[in-house]
Amino acid sequence: MIDTPSLVDHYCRGVLRTELGLGTFEAHLGGTGGAPAPGTTFFDTQTGFAVRRWCAPLLGLEAHCPPARYLARRRELGVLESGRRLLRASGISTYLVDTGPPGDLTSVPETAAAGMADAHEIVRLELLAEQVADTSGTVGAFLANLAEAVHGAADSAVALTSVAGLRHHASAAPEAPGPGGVRAAVGRWLDGRPPGARLTDPVLLSHLRWIAVATGRPLQIHVGAGDPLALSGFAAATEGLGTDLVLLHGCPYHRHAAYLASAFPHVYADVGPALARTGAGAASVLAEALERAPFGKLLFSSGARGLPESHVVGARIFREALEGVLGNWVRDGAWCRADARRVAGMVAAGNARRVYGLAG
Amino acid sequence: MIDTPSLVDHYCRGVLRTELGLGTFEAHLGGTGGAPAPGTTFFDTQTGFAVRRWCAPLLGLEAHCPPARYLARRRELGVLESGRRLLRASGISTYLVDTGPPGDLTSVPETAAAGMADAHEIVRLELLAEQVADTSGTVGAFLANLAEAVHGAADSAVALTSVAGLRHHASAAPEAPGPGGVRAAVGRWLDGRPPGARLTDPVLLSHLRWIAVATGRPLQIHVGAGDPLALSGFAAATEGLGTDLVLLHGCPYHRHAAYLASAFPHVYADVGPALARTGAGAASVLAEALERAPFGKLLFSSGARGLPESHVVGARIFREALEGVLGNWVRDGAWCRADARRVAGMVAAGNARRVYGLAG
Amino acid sequence: MIDTPSLVDHYCRGVLRTELGLGTFEAHLGGTGGAPAPGTTFFDTQTGFAVRRWCAPLLGLEAHCPPARYLARRRELGVLESGRRLLRASGISTYLVDTGPPGDLTSVPETAAAGMADAHEIVRLELLAEQVADTSGTVGAFLANLAEAVHGAADSAVALTSVAGLRHHASAAPEAPGPGGVRAAVGRWLDGRPPGARLTDPVLLSHLRWIAVATGRPLQIHVGAGDPLALSGFAAATEGLGTDLVLLHGCPYHRHAAYLASAFPHVYADVGPALARTGAGAASVLAEALERAPFGKLLFSSGARGLPESHVVGARIFREALEGVLGNWVRDGAWCRADARRVAGMVAAGNARRVYGLAG
Repeated sequence: MIDTPSLVDHYCRGVLRTELGLGTFEAHLGGTGGAPAPGTTFFDTQTGFAVRRWCAPLLGLEAHCPPARYLARRRELGVLESGRRLLRASGISTYLVDTGPPGDLTSVPETAAAGMADAHEIVRLELLAEQVADTSGTVGAFLANLAEAVHGAADSAVALTSVAGLRHHASAAPEAPGPGGVRAAVGRWLDGRPPGARLTDPVLLSHLRWIAVATGRPLQIHVGAGDPLALSGFAAATEGLGTDLVLLHGCPYHRHAAYLASAFPHVYADVGPALARTGAGAASVLAEALERAPFGKLLFSSGARGLPESHVVGARIFREALEGVLGNWVRDGAWCRADARRVAGMVAAGNARRVYGLAG
Repeated sequence: MIDTPSLVDHYCRGVLRTELGLGTFEAHLGGTGGAPAPGTTFFDTQTGFAVRRWCAPLLGLEAHCPPARYLARRRELGVLESGRRLLRASGISTYLVDTGPPGDLTSVPETAAAGMADAHEIVRLELLAEQVADTSGTVGAFLANLAEAVHGAADSAVALTSVAGLRHHASAAPEAPGPGGVRAAVGRWLDGRPPGARLTDPVLLSHLRWIAVATGRPLQIHVGAGDPLALSGFAAATEGLGTDLVLLHGCPYHRHAAYLASAFPHVYADVGPALARTGAGAASVLAEALERAPFGKLLFSSGARGLPESHVVGARIFREALEGVLGNWVRDGAWCRADARRVAGMVAAGNARRVYGLAG
Repeated sequence: MIDTPSLVDHYCRGVLRTELGLGTFEAHLGGTGGAPAPGTTFFDTQTGFAVRRWCAPLLGLEAHCPPARYLARRRELGVLESGRRLLRASGISTYLVDTGPPGDLTSVPETAAAGMADAHEIVRLELLAEQVADTSGTVGAFLANLAEAVHGAADSAVALTSVAGLRHHASAAPEAPGPGGVRAAVGRWLDGRPPGARLTDPVLLSHLRWIAVATGRPLQIHVGAGDPLALSGFAAATEGLGTDLVLLHGCPYHRHAAYLASAFPHVYADVGPALARTGAGAASVLAEALERAPFGKLLFSSGARGLPESHVVGARIFREALEGVLGNWVRDGAWCRADARRVAGMVAAGNARRVYGLAG
């Protein structure tokens, strides 16, 4: 009834280049890096069930076939061929790819080629700052190089992304930190810092976000499982500056993210990974995001990483949930069909094209 | 299957007396006072779609007609006639109207006349305190006049309402502030205060609520988008004093408001504006409020302001959601039909009549 | 379509031995200990409606019959016979019973006999500490006796339970308190303590939990209406120690509890009482818990106490919600039937058998 156009995935990472055994595959499925509890498996999750439902048929197997059979078929095809089959059947025609740290993941052009799709780069701010710190000897040099690096990234990338999220509370401080505080924080951080050490200082994270805001590029903020209302002050302080904020993830606080998107003109909310993780329950989560967010403020992403299965599952679950929710509202008479089609196109692709300045 | 009686709207404001163009109408629809994001419109929201669904037919147009056609028809009828047609078809027979600040909104009797309904006054505490401050020269005079004004308001109004909500955290303090602290806060506030300046001091806001509690009139507290569990201490401190607390709004924390209404005998929760804002998704929100709140503790309101469309949308969405949710429960055998009808009557009107002492 | 096996109720209390009048019955139904608001009754709640739906037929009455008729029939049968009829029709074959404080509730073997079921003891940590304090003269004696009592309880009981929950914030501190701080807290608590006085000191509560963790027995934590994410630090600190944490209750934060169960291999979440309290709305709440939690991490409980009706209602609502939710997912093609049956068995009984080491 509602026909969703091909998707713009406004946040994902590349896919793994290496073959995976059952155990490694399962670890990637879990997403936490840790092992499952004794007596349990990460295949017994909504994501695990969704992979068996959506991906097995794409590799020529029946839906819901056992994990071992799926992995055997995947190895038979090889990582390259199975990745191509999966990505090309995902329904995603444009990927925005967070490129760092690369690890063993495909690059932007490799991802585009594997998926026969367009792909654009997203630059990760924390990684950029860590790389600058690795090569800057003094506080002054670091600050100058950092500003140059962020502005340079903004020239080439479609978006900047901050993964520190809400973990370091003060980093959500409304106002930009003063120059004295920033210099002191840089000094502390550089002093005796081993190369590659992660950036977790809240003052520096806040400074980094404010440089990003100054570039005018959309700034993605990973809110993770935290309450995005903690960003209300930062949203108020950045309103009217011409830079959009895009809240990533946000489940179980997706309603709060949607509310923030309704309260500030420059705040947008993501509806992908929350759905991918909730699988059969995704329609409810999507309907909740659609309660308060203006329809021009929600953007699909897969939030996928590593397994091409995660790109497929993110896209398929989103599309099915969207068509289901909007189709019900049309059937109930709450919406007319033309509106439903239009909104589906906005959330699936149009909003992302407008916000990130992609060609339509 | 379930037939809801005519509604008591236990919190709304009047309607605008002036003609509205497409832009002004859209700004009122957005509700935030600001402009929509570039490339978006407030018509592309659940509220915007609900106006086109419910109100267009009341002005002789087909449901879901384009916004421009709706506005043209509205201007053709004139603000007075379109307001009358809308309010009289809302299904609301009693309005409790928050009267301040009036701006360009209809008064209580004007609202009653336009809607051919009963209407009663709700007095806004913060405005009352600001008016008293405008005319009181000393701390002592202010405190005496304030107490007199609040008690006077309680004699004539059906409820007192506090809009400061949870924005000023200390105002949700459990205990009444001591006289010394109150006098000091009044002194600071009056000192050099320009006439009309808003009350935001948490000590004074807390003092104001405690005077209100002393009157015995129901006290409405606007919780907005904050977590009403922040009011647990205040609820515990006011239990058994004979004054009811009614939590207004509360989405996305409506489940928490419902929980608080289950935990304290004198706490009630509102189910209107959360539904009006979530439109096609309202049935889920209402079902969530009905999970934990005792059925004698939920009250309908439209939360409407300015546009008579907001009164209509609030009432129609509520009624449809209520009949849908309870109807499903009856169909599933979870409830019997007689209970469903009784509960519909309670939430729609009976609870408000009892809490506010309105004639049945 | 989905057939749930007989249930393991992994947390409940015993049933009352005394006859109840309408008023006492209603007070137990309310659960808060207080009276209902004027003009309302605790029968007008989801729990009240669920008792009339599920329990009336078990006593030979029609579903949804008036409360007075139900109570009359209950008295006619007598407390013993009605309790037996109810418990034996609940579908629960194993009860894990929190035994303290006993009040007028049936013991573990009495509960087993009344329900013709298996029953095992859960020991309540706070009560144990209070009993040790009643009989220990010095700080050193208290600490030695406490450790011995907790380890002794762990030998005989299937689980330890901490009811203090999140009420005393510091008790959710990530790290174990140091010996000096513990000794000082014990000293303050024992000093002038009247026999039977409740334990509320956050340092002692934290110490108590850490002794419990050292036993290796599953530790149940009552999160009540608080946000279980407050336990993230404690969960991180106890990961890998070999002791499971089971979060009890958790509505309206059940999604957060499910998220925590997905983030830590040793954290489990409870899905019973949230459903019992939300009655006709239970399917939505259960579906939300099933969004994020790995299916091996959710455990049924009734959370029942006092009224055997609460055991019945907890079990029947759970079973109906589970079969409804999973059945829908199978109908939609999101899950296959074999998976749904397997997951139903895990949540209903299998997970509890594995976590608590019960014979299958």
